[in-house]
Amino acid sequence: MKIIGIDHVAIALSDLQELGDLLRELPGIEALGTEIVEDQGVKTDIFGTGRGKIELLASVAEDSPVDKYLRKKGPGIHHIALLVEDLEGMLIYCREKGLRLIDEEPRRGAGGNRIAFLHPKSTGGILIELCEKP
Amino acid sequence: MKIIGIDHVAIALSDLQELGDLLRELPGIEALGTEIVEDQGVKTDIFGTGRGKIELLASVAEDSPVDKYLRKKGPGIHHIALLVEDLEGMLIYCREKGLRLIDEEPRRGAGGNRIAFLHPKSTGGILIELCEKP
Repeated sequence: MKIIGIDHVAIALSDLQELGDLLRELPGIEALGTEIVEDQGVKTDIFGTGRGKIELLASVAEDSPVDKYLRKKGPGIHHIALLVEDLEGMLIYCREKGLRLIDEEPRRGAGGNRIAFLHPKSTGGILIELCEKP
Repeated sequence: MKIIGIDHVAIALSDLQELGDLLRELPGIEALGTEIVEDQGVKTDIFGTGRGKIELLASVAEDSPVDKYLRKKGPGIHHIALLVEDLEGMLIYCREKGLRLIDEEPRRGAGGNRIAFLHPKSTGGILIELCEKP
């Protein structure tokens, strides 16, 4: 049970076009596709950087977490996702350390990953996702 | 000349303690040290994740960029840094594409890296650093 790297950085935007167009033009960046994550109310354009991904997030549902974030803070880097081995074990470890979790159990994220978010109350206010490959 | 990965994600905090303590306890995360970057007015605690770093930033100078960010937005993910091969070539390429740059020429960042920031006006409002290993 351990963290093995940054899986992705997720960026909340009102409009995916400007930064998406820029990333598509940067040498070394690969557009990996677009996905709707229904239970988060987001559309995500995913880009590979060679080591870790960038996910651009736009809200497709009123009052989605990304919609609320944008209204409160404007465009910004919404969360960082750390790749883990043994997500269940990591969640048990985090609970034993007294950390608050948003997701007590893993749920399904983009790309078929299993994911769980730590609660910002336990992370200095920063949204951190733990994810495990399918 | 190309991007080869996410080098680090930088997180602006009023207090490095809470998230720093959490990262030090997470299996797989390695504390790599602390550095003062004088010309940015920041102290940074740097952590390895196995693939990409997390840099926690606190302001050590009034009106530093991080101080201004915290007053405007509160704690948050301040920027993402992409590792590049041939930083000068990448800056020329970006200028040719009409992108605005904060740094027209590479300057020195943490860890002896050579770095340059793209201007948020050209990136949908997101602060993106390009960096090259020494």
